Amino acid sequence: MKIKLGENSYGKNAVQLSKIIRHPAYHEFRQVTVNVSLKGDFDEAHITGDNSMILPTDTQKNTVYALAKDHFKTSIEDFAIYLANYFVTTQPQVAASTIEITEHLYHRMQFEGVEHPHTYIGGGAEKRTTRVTKTATKVNVQSGITDLLILKTTDSGFEKYIKDKYTTLKETADRILATKCEINWTYGNLPADYTAQFNNIRELLLLTFAGHKSLSVQQTLYAMGKSVLEAYAGISEIHLQMPNKHHIPFNLEQFDIQNENEIFIATDEPYGLITATVTRE
Amino acid sequence: MKIKLGENSYGKNAVQLSKIIRHPAYHEFRQVTVNVSLKGDFDEAHITGDNSMILPTDTQKNTVYALAKDHFKTSIEDFAIYLANYFVTTQPQVAASTIEITEHLYHRMQFEGVEHPHTYIGGGAEKRTTRVTKTATKVNVQSGITDLLILKTTDSGFEKYIKDKYTTLKETADRILATKCEINWTYGNLPADYTAQFNNIRELLLLTFAGHKSLSVQQTLYAMGKSVLEAYAGISEIHLQMPNKHHIPFNLEQFDIQNENEIFIATDEPYGLITATVTRE
Amino acid sequence: MKIKLGENSYGKNAVQLSKIIRHPAYHEFRQVTVNVSLKGDFDEAHITGDNSMILPTDTQKNTVYALAKDHFKTSIEDFAIYLANYFVTTQPQVAASTIEITEHLYHRMQFEGVEHPHTYIGGGAEKRTTRVTKTATKVNVQSGITDLLILKTTDSGFEKYIKDKYTTLKETADRILATKCEINWTYGNLPADYTAQFNNIRELLLLTFAGHKSLSVQQTLYAMGKSVLEAYAGISEIHLQMPNKHHIPFNLEQFDIQNENEIFIATDEPYGLITATVTRE
Amino acid sequence: MKIKLGENSYGKNAVQLSKIIRHPAYHEFRQVTVNVSLKGDFDEAHITGDNSMILPTDTQKNTVYALAKDHFKTSIEDFAIYLANYFVTTQPQVAASTIEITEHLYHRMQFEGVEHPHTYIGGGAEKRTTRVTKTATKVNVQSGITDLLILKTTDSGFEKYIKDKYTTLKETADRILATKCEINWTYGNLPADYTAQFNNIRELLLLTFAGHKSLSVQQTLYAMGKSVLEAYAGISEIHLQMPNKHHIPFNLEQFDIQNENEIFIATDEPYGLITATVTRE
Repeated sequence: MKIKLGENSYGKNAVQLSKIIRHPAYHEFRQVTVNVSLKGDFDEAHITGDNSMILPTDTQKNTVYALAKDHFKTSIEDFAIYLANYFVTTQPQVAASTIEITEHLYHRMQFEGVEHPHTYIGGGAEKRTTRVTKTATKVNVQSGITDLLILKTTDSGFEKYIKDKYTTLKETADRILATKCEINWTYGNLPADYTAQFNNIRELLLLTFAGHKSLSVQQTLYAMGKSVLEAYAGISEIHLQMPNKHHIPFNLEQFDIQNENEIFIATDEPYGLITATVTRE
Repeated sequence: MKIKLGENSYGKNAVQLSKIIRHPAYHEFRQVTVNVSLKGDFDEAHITGDNSMILPTDTQKNTVYALAKDHFKTSIEDFAIYLANYFVTTQPQVAASTIEITEHLYHRMQFEGVEHPHTYIGGGAEKRTTRVTKTATKVNVQSGITDLLILKTTDSGFEKYIKDKYTTLKETADRILATKCEINWTYGNLPADYTAQFNNIRELLLLTFAGHKSLSVQQTLYAMGKSVLEAYAGISEIHLQMPNKHHIPFNLEQFDIQNENEIFIATDEPYGLITATVTRE
Repeated sequence: MKIKLGENSYGKNAVQLSKIIRHPAYHEFRQVTVNVSLKGDFDEAHITGDNSMILPTDTQKNTVYALAKDHFKTSIEDFAIYLANYFVTTQPQVAASTIEITEHLYHRMQFEGVEHPHTYIGGGAEKRTTRVTKTATKVNVQSGITDLLILKTTDSGFEKYIKDKYTTLKETADRILATKCEINWTYGNLPADYTAQFNNIRELLLLTFAGHKSLSVQQTLYAMGKSVLEAYAGISEIHLQMPNKHHIPFNLEQFDIQNENEIFIATDEPYGLITATVTRE
Repeated sequence: MKIKLGENSYGKNAVQLSKIIRHPAYHEFRQVTVNVSLKGDFDEAHITGDNSMILPTDTQKNTVYALAKDHFKTSIEDFAIYLANYFVTTQPQVAASTIEITEHLYHRMQFEGVEHPHTYIGGGAEKRTTRVTKTATKVNVQSGITDLLILKTTDSGFEKYIKDKYTTLKETADRILATKCEINWTYGNLPADYTAQFNNIRELLLLTFAGHKSLSVQQTLYAMGKSVLEAYAGISEIHLQMPNKHHIPFNLEQFDIQNENEIFIATDEPYGLITATVTRE
């Protein structure tokens, strides 16, 4: 069988860009990480080393910085769509361009309830994300959240599962449920305001998590995804990845102390990993 | 010259503990990382392998979990003091015990301005810390903050420094100042309420950072430390470590675009590292 | 449109297992990280919280440790195949099970050319990997390497690429080529000895990298993949991911010093990312 | 009590530098991370923002790259001494300069026993380190190793330790001993060839670890340190930090399987941390 080049892509990853947008009353500070990835007619580059169809990844990086001046003014989705479209329209050899942007969150400091005009505090591990893929005729826009650490101290149990000879886990009607989620959704209809959509969906996800009487991570995950699809007709599907960050009751009883669901070993590994897409028929 | 054992210590690090404190109206969730370190008469353990003076690090870990039930109810400082005292009083061979506690911050979720009774969101990279060292007769209590990411988009410059043949940096009266600080202070007088003290000092540090017209990181660092010592007579000294997380203007001019302090390369490495102790005469 | 559960899976990740295999002349030490992932009939768990079809991830973890005693004796591939088959045959609700194993490499210490019988030194970042997916009727076996850091100081250039208004990169016929690769290949025919296969393929990949006169990362990547498919008819395809870890010449000329390709800034970010599958027609 | 500036320093950290040294028969590739730290008369910079005594950290970085051309030709110690001396002699306001260099290890690829002239493979996590502090009249040179992962599968026990009410650890005469050490030693007399010294000391440390019948980590640590001081009169003291990376026997007995010291849970946290200096009277 003859050997051939299969699926391939190339691009620049981890372009770290920050921007100050100067509003009359305050400075808006934004920091993002941008990945560019291109697919297209790159067979000759692989097979003969002919680079005549290759836009260097260094140039891709420069392009991101150059276009940020005029085109990164609102949401990361709008900037990603602009960039994805730029590469696919200016580079005829590019069949599809994918732009991923991760936004590092900063909040304006507040003193006595008043926001400071130009001083920020980092927003922590949680990040807002987008992934846009553009071809000559189509655009696919995903938005999401990553590293969102959420936890509830009750309203979560895990019972009536399969038992076999290797089972040691005890059933419980009351446990800590903690997860550091990665969630992203696909737009069937592109919204006018991605940031408003993002804020609404994030709020709904948190509200569903908080209110859910959880019989399993699977059930909570599905409830969260379903709530978004029910509320927003423009979302075609949503993907949730929820590692179960186990808080394991410490065996105080061996020291004649009662552990009434109070003292836990917080663990990172090993971890249950639950992942699903909620979609429409 | 004869060979001998010099300074030495041993203990358990990275004890990951979480606790639910059940109040009538809500559940308080706490998560901490505890390090135990003991110094004392351990020469025989090193020289002959005689373990009769060694409290295993596994037992130290068990002790942390066991004592958390009754003694981790308020601040990490109070728990650390209890633990440090426990090891030094129950183990006669221990001359000094040091307890370090790092608290991972969680915030109760809020919906329409109301805090949910048992659902939390992770507080990000910033962590509250303490370090307590106890001997038979003395206690040293330090409190602090780590991984506090703060940034201002203006009111910061860097000018009139030494120039030599390797200088390429341009002077600027207006740059981004960003740092991920580690700050800790030592109590000359132990306060009644460590959490109130912590909150007040943290607020003062942020306020000083926000209001300072910075001529250098050094000057801002010193101003922050000085403000704490001036306001709190019970603090004997404060140590600040402030890596300069550089946001470097991207050279848009090479593309005939003006960069009016808008577009930056956000860098992690290399970084300036400024560190100082502010103390009293 | 009705909402429904789409693709989903669950399992235990990061099961950290080490084993001593006691040979007459020496102890063999092995350390692996195992991920288990199951797909199947889990709709009720998501929709109603009915766990009767759920084998807990905690039990999956126990199973890995229990089966390692008798079934982790040779390659990670053999162990992964056993585990994958175990879950799919003992759990009728499981349609497909995937086992990923990453092996952390240790080498026996050598003194004066003799291997010590029971003392090891860690093998660094490079790890051997496998991914096995099993259904009732099919098995897919992939083997690979991850975090393989390789570098050549010459025989690499990058020229004759597209130039546009954002191009600043200079063409070069002589640059450092460095990459931390992730490579994995799929077996069309399962080999009798996975470890011998692995060692042969790894050697061939290194030899091809070393000998290649590189006109681009793409060309080197393709040459490496092609060499494996040419040499091993049992390999159906190979996937290579090669981040370009740039070593950028430092501009010494600004200090009137000549940099004859000697002094470089070693960078992690941003990085070019080149990825491709080499396959058969 | 008046407030004053206490101990302080500043400098550039994480300067990533690589170098090709072109020998007739092969290319030598070196990659290092350099930290510069200066102490001296910086009171005005902190108190009034007067930068006239401040050599910018950006200039420090440039200096490292510029001086590497002619002065980084042999060991990291020789380069660190040159740099430390450069800053203290050219900058009168600097009372002490400290240079830390971490060398990332690369090995030339070998094919059929022959080293390739210009192709390298990364040497893993283990790194060679140095720390040099220079004042007008004194130099202190430390050399060391970091992230050295070593392990023995037998000849290690832990018994006859203190038992109390929180003890659950079982005594064992045969356990895995694993540690990722950080070791550094101070030269009383500076050697002519730092690399030869480093290689000899590293070999002796490994040999002592391999041959030691360990009754505790403390005893092994001390034996390792002592062996170096006994063999090398020019070393004034050695510091060893040895986290105990626990491999905990998995309880197979609960499944009616015997675990004859074969199957272990490999853990990262929590970990015992043993640290000591071995010195001379």
